[in-house]
Amino acid sequence: MEHEIKGVIRECDLAIKQEDFDALMDYYCEDAILVVKPGRIARGKQEIKDAFIKISQYFHNSLVPTQGEMLILEAGDTALVLSQTLLDAEQNEQGFSMDRRATYVFKKNSQGKWLCAIDNSYGTDLINTL
Amino acid sequence: MEHEIKGVIRECDLAIKQEDFDALMDYYCEDAILVVKPGRIARGKQEIKDAFIKISQYFHNSLVPTQGEMLILEAGDTALVLSQTLLDAEQNEQGFSMDRRATYVFKKNSQGKWLCAIDNSYGTDLINTL
Repeated sequence: MEHEIKGVIRECDLAIKQEDFDALMDYYCEDAILVVKPGRIARGKQEIKDAFIKISQYFHNSLVPTQGEMLILEAGDTALVLSQTLLDAEQNEQGFSMDRRATYVFKKNSQGKWLCAIDNSYGTDLINTL
Repeated sequence: MEHEIKGVIRECDLAIKQEDFDALMDYYCEDAILVVKPGRIARGKQEIKDAFIKISQYFHNSLVPTQGEMLILEAGDTALVLSQTLLDAEQNEQGFSMDRRATYVFKKNSQGKWLCAIDNSYGTDLINTL
């Protein structure tokens, strides 16, 4: 059976494609963080939503993320997702691959719903930018 | 100031070097998981301790892990650690680099202590093994 988190990530990718950032934020924890780019982090839903709006504009409203191979490591109410994240857009991000090995951390809330706590599409490549 | 988790990981590396696996287990959550190798996961403290004893034997009791560049992404009581993990031993692991880009997930417990929930020294390279 497909892991519930796979469905959540598919919904997130669809929300990004449709630029429905309110729907997107339903899948993030209140205190979630997003690595916008190396060295820049958005904290909390409002900053993350604003960042997604800017990211969308940067890609001329043409960004379509999809996931390739995905591995979910689950430990109690916490899960680490390792995912081949493919970004398709009219223009590429300067200096970074559009074919990434992303790392996402999800937490299960008290209603049993998986929410994204840490959204880092750059994966361990961030280490190279230190 | 150094992040508290850096100190925890240093203590863990020391405990592995000294083969003090009881001390090592103090830094893991009860329901933690360890990626022993691609496709094999140890769940819970007892399995993780047993796995570390076997790993230690595999490396002829000569395993010394150290960390190079490290990045800690913290979101509330959850943190994702991206770390250059260097494994030194008399023999290398067959088929896997001893210079890794590891992913560790830590959780802060009710006493404010950071504990390892997901220990995956293979990082996103696990995706390539699917």
